[in-house]
Amino acid sequence: MSTCITTLSVLVQNKPGVLARIASLFARRGYNIESLSVGPTEREDTSRMTIVALTPDEATVEQITKQLNKLIEVIKITEMEKGKTVRRELILVKIHADATTRTDVLALVEAFRGKVVDVASDTIIVELTGKYGKVHAFLDMVAPYGIKELVQSGSVALARGSRAITDRSKHDRHPHD
Amino acid sequence: MSTCITTLSVLVQNKPGVLARIASLFARRGYNIESLSVGPTEREDTSRMTIVALTPDEATVEQITKQLNKLIEVIKITEMEKGKTVRRELILVKIHADATTRTDVLALVEAFRGKVVDVASDTIIVELTGKYGKVHAFLDMVAPYGIKELVQSGSVALARGSRAITDRSKHDRHPHD
Repeated sequence: MSTCITTLSVLVQNKPGVLARIASLFARRGYNIESLSVGPTEREDTSRMTIVALTPDEATVEQITKQLNKLIEVIKITEMEKGKTVRRELILVKIHADATTRTDVLALVEAFRGKVVDVASDTIIVELTGKYGKVHAFLDMVAPYGIKELVQSGSVALARGSRAITDRSKHDRHPHD
Repeated sequence: MSTCITTLSVLVQNKPGVLARIASLFARRGYNIESLSVGPTEREDTSRMTIVALTPDEATVEQITKQLNKLIEVIKITEMEKGKTVRRELILVKIHADATTRTDVLALVEAFRGKVVDVASDTIIVELTGKYGKVHAFLDMVAPYGIKELVQSGSVALARGSRAITDRSKHDRHPHD
């Protein structure tokens, strides 16, 4: 069975319980959330979620957005289109790096334009922002040194160009043609 | 009533329904989640959440962690201590910037070491990573030009030094003394 990776941007009312309802909807139907970010927006009364979900096919994505649209707290949903979307992730990763390996690890950090934000005798913490591919290429490169700890932000995504999510109709899907 | 901002790092089993259960726990008790990030970790079978919650007092934080600990899918919880924690946020923000204002907006982006990731005739998209204070100072500075759209990752946080969350006991709180 093939799997689609779908990124949904969901604008919701900033009320307690909204996240619980949305997460329950995914759980009840057995859709796996790969990553999720939720935070405040430019307006105090709304929050914005970026949900990366693994779905078996396009029809399932259609179903999910329909179900989400039924929730009264959901203001807008947009499926983020590949090629028309800026998508970024942020990681903080604690890498094993002692006197013998630190120079090599730092060279990798520099190559990927990461930022060292903490140094201890046998570890460093690196902050890295970028596209999924870049972030994961970095993690692959430093894995042999030993990843002690990793925390990821989940994707955040915005549509390219000047239109905002609020310029669109409530349910504005663009199936990949 | 004063409000505490609490950052919890929660290591959980990577199973459908975990996020729903945790979000429901917060919702049922009326605790407001300011931001939440969840993503994969260095181990495939675990996910890590960073939850920033607004709580009325320290006792409430104690209660929340106790309740979270009762969930079977929760592996570890750590309350991230101020001063011993690296905490970062990522934003993508679409700012109104036309021929007359673009230069001024770009100067601000440069000053905050942001990155322009998209340019349209009357908007730009900026990627910015940093501490809460820096990110919000930037948003305050560009607000007069017009923020069309904003998406935030929610905080991600790692403890400074070489210890990992998995080196700690399941419930390892360090109340601010």
